Amino acid sequence: MDYETPQFYRVIQYARRADRDVVDMVSGSPDWDPPEGLREGLREYAELGADEYQYTASVGLPELRSEIAERRGVDRDRIVVTNGAGEANYLAMARALERERGSEILLTDPVYPYYPGKTTMLGGTQRFVATDEKGQLDPDNVRAAASEETAAIVVNTPNNPTGAVYPAETMRELVAIAETYDAVLISDEVYDHYDLSGAFASALETDSAHRIVTNAFSKSMAITGARVGYAIFPPELVANAKSRHMLVNVATTRPGQFAVLQALRETEPAYYERNRERLRERVETFTDALEAAGAAYTTPRGSFYVMARFEGYPGTVANVERLIDEAGVAGMPGEAFGESRTEWLRFALVTPRVEEAAERLAAYFE
Amino acid sequence: MDYETPQFYRVIQYARRADRDVVDMVSGSPDWDPPEGLREGLREYAELGADEYQYTASVGLPELRSEIAERRGVDRDRIVVTNGAGEANYLAMARALERERGSEILLTDPVYPYYPGKTTMLGGTQRFVATDEKGQLDPDNVRAAASEETAAIVVNTPNNPTGAVYPAETMRELVAIAETYDAVLISDEVYDHYDLSGAFASALETDSAHRIVTNAFSKSMAITGARVGYAIFPPELVANAKSRHMLVNVATTRPGQFAVLQALRETEPAYYERNRERLRERVETFTDALEAAGAAYTTPRGSFYVMARFEGYPGTVANVERLIDEAGVAGMPGEAFGESRTEWLRFALVTPRVEEAAERLAAYFE
Repeated sequence: MDYETPQFYRVIQYARRADRDVVDMVSGSPDWDPPEGLREGLREYAELGADEYQYTASVGLPELRSEIAERRGVDRDRIVVTNGAGEANYLAMARALERERGSEILLTDPVYPYYPGKTTMLGGTQRFVATDEKGQLDPDNVRAAASEETAAIVVNTPNNPTGAVYPAETMRELVAIAETYDAVLISDEVYDHYDLSGAFASALETDSAHRIVTNAFSKSMAITGARVGYAIFPPELVANAKSRHMLVNVATTRPGQFAVLQALRETEPAYYERNRERLRERVETFTDALEAAGAAYTTPRGSFYVMARFEGYPGTVANVERLIDEAGVAGMPGEAFGESRTEWLRFALVTPRVEEAAERLAAYFE
Repeated sequence: MDYETPQFYRVIQYARRADRDVVDMVSGSPDWDPPEGLREGLREYAELGADEYQYTASVGLPELRSEIAERRGVDRDRIVVTNGAGEANYLAMARALERERGSEILLTDPVYPYYPGKTTMLGGTQRFVATDEKGQLDPDNVRAAASEETAAIVVNTPNNPTGAVYPAETMRELVAIAETYDAVLISDEVYDHYDLSGAFASALETDSAHRIVTNAFSKSMAITGARVGYAIFPPELVANAKSRHMLVNVATTRPGQFAVLQALRETEPAYYERNRERLRERVETFTDALEAAGAAYTTPRGSFYVMARFEGYPGTVANVERLIDEAGVAGMPGEAFGESRTEWLRFALVTPRVEEAAERLAAYFE
């Protein structure tokens, strides 16, 4: 078996080895602090007794599952606490394929590259549905691509890399399409705390036995390294997902779960609002500079990313590496996200140096 | 797809809900303290900057991989830091099956129940090789069971549940058999720090492109909840395993890796020796009491477990639940470990109350 390795790490490595100062806008790792409750949780955990260092329930720390259940308005039994959104999406896609109602996974183009990677690894096939230039997904196009072969439809809102936020109507339609074709809508909502539009609608709002919602604290609490996420399954699908979680990982890291629980309980809405505000400012700064440089670009309604197109400079790995060496700015090549954005580059606004980066780009392309 | 769920959690839940005091000897969670360096590592991590809370390399924290590489005498590139031995074994078995040189996994009987569970989940088939009454595996029996269909041979030394420690000669032969049939020997050595016999031999001692060694800090540092382990692959097999690790989990928890690194650097051999000594004493106490009660039992040469057989009381789930309710001792049913130990019960010596447990058993069965 051969499956694609997402190229994030390759580009990050290249940027780190560069022989000059580089503004890193490659990965989606926040540069802001986790909430204080997270650090306090780790400090408290360090003083606990031997018992607390051992296995907790495979599906997750009971108090953390209860806290998530209450916040999301679902039954606790439907939640599996996972090793980040990465494992949550893996479990969800595996669960959809295991139903044996088709082996095709519908993905968007552009696409977050881990989804096609997971699909191939799990023995599924991919079918892509193009989004419009703003990254919006037309449910009619999804319906046209769906068939008896469809096992799952995987979407990400707010979206990486386009910054699109799907309206409630789209989410409802996607659930309806999954129901029509006896498939599963998998909605990865890991950027839900970075909705800048106010229009975000979780797939949870449309109750269905054909819908799995995945999420994590990686972005909302700026702890991509901690690896704590979760998936919410319909009651009909949860049992096998719990078994797979147990057989692959046994359980999710307990100090991480403990610290996240503490942070969930203690963190005020102001923390999340501050992070959104910082992001809004960076979007404005970066897109203003791109505008001045005469580049085409997207203005994200959510998530961390701006896509930019520079005349005669397609979004290849070679061009990204050249940009690192010659302009001192590291982004991701558009070709990593599918067929539709090969002319584009993606920049993650997770550095205080967005203005400097934009100036370097403007100078380089002028 | 349907796959077996290991029964540990079911029995643990039953014991916790019991309407009486129960000595819990079900799971392999140490009741002793992690090394002080582990707690110090968590305290230090809690004070680090935002950067340190983000993704590190998918394959693991570079300094931790280097530390493991040096201690195990292997090239760092061959190591993947995993979410405990659970993920390490999953990656190893998946990697063996992906080679498409057979789809059969040879397992021992008795067997650690996660191995057959993983095999089925990964689409492989199982074939069991009986061990002798002391849990020793005769390589001739493995050779007789091996064929072109063999993808992997999975062993665990020191062994759960038998307490057997395989001699160096057995390990060499197992590697040779894997080579003969173009298969992979997967050696799970998570109890290596609990070798009470002095006879433990790692599969690493026999260099081969057909051998994967898995391990974790879960038992050696008494941190089953932290979920930090690793797998050492031959250079020929490591690339795909890294991809799978990335696609399933993205990375292993960073605070856990950081704390383990600190503990590895700071922990004196005396810590591990104290834990072995405690275990030796418990083995003696527990087996003496079983002897006095006229029960049959095994004396482990390594790992945490004693198997016991009481006349007319087979190792079924029903009997284990009865023992919880009527004797106040919780063990695991022998039938959970395969065909060969259905008359037996397994008791984990991870409680200071082993003497009390043995007395309760003696009183109950007298």
